[in-house]
Order: sequence, then C-alpha cells, then structure tokens
Amino acid sequence: MALLPAGTIRSKNYPDNTYPFRAGSHFLYFVGISLPDAALLFADSEVTLYAPSPDASAALWHGPSAGLDELGAELGLRVRPTAELVVRARGLAGEIATISPNDDVTADWLSDLLDRRVEARRGARAVDGTADAALADALVAVRLSHDEAGLAQLRQAAAVTALAHAAGMRATHPGRREADVMAAMIAAIFSSGMGIAYEPIVTVHGEVLHNQSYTNPIAATDLLLADVGAETPEGWAGDVTRTWPASGRYSATQRALYDVVLDAQRLAISLVRPKTRYRAIHEATARRIVEGLVHLGILRGEVDGLIERGAHALFLPHGVGHLLGLDVHDMEDLGDRAGYERGRTRPTRFGDRYLRLDRDLISGMAVTIEPGFYNVPGILNDATLTAPIGGDLDRGKLATFADVRGIRIEDDVVVTEGDPEVLSAAIPKAPGDIEAAMRG
Amino acid sequence: MALLPAGTIRSKNYPDNTYPFRAGSHFLYFVGISLPDAALLFADSEVTLYAPSPDASAALWHGPSAGLDELGAELGLRVRPTAELVVRARGLAGEIATISPNDDVTADWLSDLLDRRVEARRGARAVDGTADAALADALVAVRLSHDEAGLAQLRQAAAVTALAHAAGMRATHPGRREADVMAAMIAAIFSSGMGIAYEPIVTVHGEVLHNQSYTNPIAATDLLLADVGAETPEGWAGDVTRTWPASGRYSATQRALYDVVLDAQRLAISLVRPKTRYRAIHEATARRIVEGLVHLGILRGEVDGLIERGAHALFLPHGVGHLLGLDVHDMEDLGDRAGYERGRTRPTRFGDRYLRLDRDLISGMAVTIEPGFYNVPGILNDATLTAPIGGDLDRGKLATFADVRGIRIEDDVVVTEGDPEVLSAAIPKAPGDIEAAMRG
Repeated sequence: MALLPAGTIRSKNYPDNTYPFRAGSHFLYFVGISLPDAALLFADSEVTLYAPSPDASAALWHGPSAGLDELGAELGLRVRPTAELVVRARGLAGEIATISPNDDVTADWLSDLLDRRVEARRGARAVDGTADAALADALVAVRLSHDEAGLAQLRQAAAVTALAHAAGMRATHPGRREADVMAAMIAAIFSSGMGIAYEPIVTVHGEVLHNQSYTNPIAATDLLLADVGAETPEGWAGDVTRTWPASGRYSATQRALYDVVLDAQRLAISLVRPKTRYRAIHEATARRIVEGLVHLGILRGEVDGLIERGAHALFLPHGVGHLLGLDVHDMEDLGDRAGYERGRTRPTRFGDRYLRLDRDLISGMAVTIEPGFYNVPGILNDATLTAPIGGDLDRGKLATFADVRGIRIEDDVVVTEGDPEVLSAAIPKAPGDIEAAMRG
Repeated sequence: MALLPAGTIRSKNYPDNTYPFRAGSHFLYFVGISLPDAALLFADSEVTLYAPSPDASAALWHGPSAGLDELGAELGLRVRPTAELVVRARGLAGEIATISPNDDVTADWLSDLLDRRVEARRGARAVDGTADAALADALVAVRLSHDEAGLAQLRQAAAVTALAHAAGMRATHPGRREADVMAAMIAAIFSSGMGIAYEPIVTVHGEVLHNQSYTNPIAATDLLLADVGAETPEGWAGDVTRTWPASGRYSATQRALYDVVLDAQRLAISLVRPKTRYRAIHEATARRIVEGLVHLGILRGEVDGLIERGAHALFLPHGVGHLLGLDVHDMEDLGDRAGYERGRTRPTRFGDRYLRLDRDLISGMAVTIEPGFYNVPGILNDATLTAPIGGDLDRGKLATFADVRGIRIEDDVVVTEGDPEVLSAAIPKAPGDIEAAMRG
C-alpha cells in the first residue's frame, strides 16, 4: 500500500499571493495534472485519487472547477473526496508507505493521516528496510526508463527549449543586459504554454555555476552562457545549455576552448548506450578536456598523471550530467537512491563528488551530457587544489584566454539500443551554426 | 524587543530546485535585500542584522558572496552571523516579539529561538494584548504611509508595469493565445530587471477573477483583461489592470460598458484624499456603476433601492481596491489588522465582504482603485443573490452585451494633500488611447 501526495500551494508573502503550484513528481508521474492537496492511494489492488471537493465560493475567484466525477472521467481514475481518505486510511490494515513531500504542511497532513511522523524532504531520507524505502525503490525502478508517453513529453519540452535558445541567440547584443536575453528566452517558453523547469541561468559569468541574477551588462568580448529549459504542463523537463559570443562571432581564443568542450561533449554523447557506466562517460569526458587543454598549452605533461592529480576538476568542477525526466535532476528528491546504483557511492574528490549519476545506462533512460570549461578564481587560487598540478598549469598561457570565463554545452540524450537520441539536437551547437542563428 | 525573520528558500520539486526567494515584507521594509535565513533584531536600543556566514563551498555554485562586514557597510547596519543570535536571544530579558513567517521551517526556527510556539502565517493571527500584536500594530503604523524612498520604489514599479501593459497591448491579436500576451508582458518586466509582484492574470475570461491559466485562444470579439504588475528588486509592487479589445477596437457594447466602469473609476480616483473613508469610495463607485447599468437598461429602477438589494455586487463582486506597498495587498499577512481601522470589520454581504480596506485615508498611503463589471454565470444563476433584484435585472438587455464577460480598470494611487498621484497614469486607459497603443 502506498500513498503519493501532490503537495500544497505555498504562499510567497501572504496567503493569497502564492508561488505557481507544481505537484510532486511521483504524483505527477501517475496523475499528470497538478492538483493541490490531492493524493494517490494504491491499496487493495486498486488505485484511487483523493482530491478536494470543488468549492463553490472558489469558483468566483478561480473559475468553475471540474467535479470529481468529471475529473475521474478525464483521468480514467477512480476519484473520491479527500475527506474520505482519513476513514479509508484508518480502515486499511498495515503500513501505508509514502514519499516525503516538499513542504511541511503536507508532511504534517501525512503524519496525521498515517499516524506516524513523516518529514518534509529537506531532512528526510527513507531508511533502508522500511516500507517507505521499498516504495522509493519501486518508484525509481518505474521512472528510470521512460515509456513512449514520457519520451513524448521530453521531446515536447526539448522542442520548446529550442525556441527559447533560438530567441536568446537572436536577442543577444553587446550593450544589452543579461536580463534582456533571459526575458526573451522565457517569453518563448511561456508563449508556448509551458513553464520553466528551473530558474534560468543566463550570464556572462558562466564560471559561477548556478548564477541566477541577470544584472550584468553584456560586453562585446563576453561569452554568454544560457542554461534554460522548458517544463511541459504535465511537469516534464528540458535542460539545455549553450554558450555563445555576445559579438556574434567567437574570438580565436573563445573558439579554441569552445572546440575543446564541444569535442568532449560529442565524445560523451557517442558513449551513451545501454550497459555503459555513466561514471565512465564522466571520466572519458574529463580526460578529453584535459587532452584539449594540454593541446592548447594550458596544462602540461602526461594526461593520466594530470587526471590523477585532479587537473580536470580545476576547470570542470562538476559532473558530466544527471538523470532527466519529470524533475530536471530526475528523482533527486530521493537523494542518491535514484542516481547511484546500489553499492555505488559518490566519489570523494573535489569536482568528481558533484557527479549526480553513476548507473549503468539502460534503454529509455534520459540523461544530460554537459561538460564545461570554467575559469574560477576561487579554484585556481586555492593552493590545496592547484598544488598537485604545480608548474604543469601554465598560468601565463591561461591568461591569454582571458575572454573565456565559462563555457558549458549541454544536451538532453535518451539511451536507445542504437545511436542515442539527442532530444535537443535542433539547437545550434557548432560554432558556425550558432553564429548563423545569432544573425537570425 | 522585536525580531523580523526574512524566511527561507523553498524547494519546488527537490531541494536544489527552488522557487525564487523573496524575503518577508516586514524584513524587506527595513533591510531592502532578500537575504535568506536572516533576521533583523531590535533590542537594547540597537538594530542588528543576523545573517548566515558566507559559505566557501557555495561560492562555486552561487558566486562569491559579500562578507558580513562588507554587507554591513553596504546596508549601513550592524551585521553579525546568525549563529550568534541563539546566544543573544537567550541573553535578552523579556519577550521578543515577532511576526509569523510565511513558511514552517522559519516558524520552527523562531519557535526554538524564542522558546515559544510561533506558527507560520497560514493559521496565525497575533492575539491582541500580546507583544506580537503590538509589534504588528507598530509595523502597520510605520508602513501605512510611504516615505519618499517607498514612493520612489512604487513609482519605479509602476513605470515598469507600464512597459508591460504597452507590450501586452501591442502583442494582442486575434488568433494568438493568452499565453502570447502574458509572455510579452512578463518579458518587458524581466528585461527591465524586475520580477512579477503576483502571478499575472491575462485572460479573455475576465469574469473569473483570479484566472491564472493562459490557454485560451483570443477571438476577435473578445476583450482581454490583463492584471499584471512588476516588483522592484527591493520588493515593492505595481498592480495595474487594463481591459482591451482583441480586435484593436471596442465594439459598441464593449465600449458602452467600458465607459461605465471608466467613469466609476475616475470618480473613485477623484475621491482619494486624506480623511476620506475608503469604504465610502467603494460605495460611491458601486453606486456609479449601478447608475451606469440603469442608464444602459441592464438594471431598472431606483438606484438606492437597487444597491440596498445588492444589485451592484451582481456585477462588481469584489472591493474597489486595497493597500499597495511592499506587498501587492500590502500587509495582508496581518489579516485585516492593516486594512481595517480598529473598530471596523468587514461587511458581511456578498461582494462587499471582499472589501480589503476600510481606513480613513492618510497622506502617503498607496491604494489601488479597481472597479469592474463582470458577467459571472455563477452569480447571475444564483437565485439567492438575484431574487432581491427580480425583474429589475433585464436579462434580455444584458444578453445584448454578450461580448463583455469581464472588464476591470485598475490604477495605483497615492494619497496626497492635493490631487491624488496616479502612479500608473502613463498607461493608456481612455478607449481611444488604448486603441492607439494597440496599433503601436
């Protein structure tokens, strides 16, 4: 028996001023629409959606809502009023497994309903051996590989994400601000009837990995890094990064480093196939980046040794990607239970420890492939991190690439029995294609 | 002694995927920037901002953050690490008053810190006679009338709100969808470096008062109602509604009803002056609407009697406006403590009970003025509401206005000793001006 809560609406500054509601992904996976305060019960060989009864006075403010019978017909589900769930839950013998919700209001509601303490997601991890852990494992098993309906959703998200990136490339001009480009990109998403899968990163400071302010002016010598993805109304995510030259043309130095990242990214995508261990893709990508940097003279010496000493993480301090699905980091609410195969744990070394996925790939799995090159002062000035590399890092040479602060190239890729399906293939990626797209 | 919490970041679907953070308005009023997990303490005749110490590992993801000393210099405030607040709070004799935060995590944190139960805002109302109630009253007293800095913020919000409405008017064409117009409007806001003060309403079904989906196609005969406001980075709100014809030209019936609402709205603005009771403006506006509807033949009979029988609420079921400031419904987190003068309570009658403000106006106060006309089937088919009007509602006549479902005209108005300052005066409002703006 299992109960999957949708979660509740949360207020921003007072009860009537709320954040847009998005149901929890486990709920959305089965139900497909974001119904606040609803929950899906699997019990006695049947599935029941419990949803609040339509409120007549709410109709004035929010419009007439479908009755529960109408909702049931639309969803093809048995639907009952939430009020009945209390009685039903008491009548069921044995423990009802559940998943920690995102918010404390829902956690308190579940705690009352299930007569045991359920914590909100911020602290909670299901303990192995419990019914909750078994449910989490079952959900991971179901959601790891996407069926055709899921893939169709991911393709739609990628298609609208492509519109956003095209709009961003066209909107970029020196003298404008990051906010102008961000606005053009999200307008393309919202006008397509979708939302954003995560807060966009649109920045001339790509070396700040999760930079989410948009206040910088764009200079002609800047690269603009845009990590922006659409979310379908059913909740499925796109997650794509492109890095383009503000001037419309990569400088020789920008182009050289861009090509290093692009080469590594293409290698990584070519490795996406069933049975490949994702960590091996991460490692192959890091190695290819180091090879490229040696070729450019930024690093010196033998590649294996450089990697052993952590040279890759100086410039690529994050993992090569993650699961993609209903969540942009799919099922990350379950911690590493989804991303890491049983028995595998996160690497401990700086950089590698941010690898969010280490499974053997299976057909139907969707992952991002997103290597990068970043010139992060906080890393390059950190003696602990740079000491092992010593003189093999040519800082003088690196300084000649001063017009590159951050490059990331990220695609959404589905594992298939044949060549991987690159969902975001329509988005320009080769330097010439990007330059052409920027000219409109 | 008082402690004002900023609140905490909330996750959307997993801990790393969060809603944009906005600090609580009482905190923002004094501090001006949205610092998660911070709190402002007033104690022992001094003010101290407690903020989390910058986290070195977070710098990689979010960029280097200012040190606390740097922050203090920027804000002109004494700033100390949050960790010290626990000790400080224990050392203070007597009760520290606080305001219920928006989220349960912060409520739990405050409860531990203050050693008494603090509830999140959803249920909580400060009980008269307590220190918390005294603090709430003090905040209301301070925030009711805006100083020049606050007015400057409101003017900036209104200026960017004007850009959004201009973009929306230009983007409206039959055959496009509500989402296209909404996207154009929010793009104007985000490209100006601001955010949205509330989830936009951009709809051809203006009769659904808080309609926040954007899926309808726009037909040539539709009116489009857009209730969209910008929020400054410091958190101050704009809140403006315009209603324009999808075709670019009001039909005769649309124009006739638009003029009724516009006439009432202008009357209401003219009444905004110190010492006027806001409820009197609501009532004068409702009366003027009824007069207009009698003139059009939709209502019949004597105006006083019609109002007594609730005729105005059939078509204007909400209040004429509310306080405006840092919150778009300013200080609504305090319930009616802010909106209602001591000793005044909400009217109980349908429609009037949604009046959010009933104070005597004072100079420096900002309010919205937003009458409307709505053809709401749920109201007009409600026998309890319509029975008192009986045959004085000419349903045949009303049916001839079928191309009007909802009209609202809303401006942001500051009470001054002279003529009121209409912050949103730059946004076209007269039918001819709107038609001209739509032509670009």
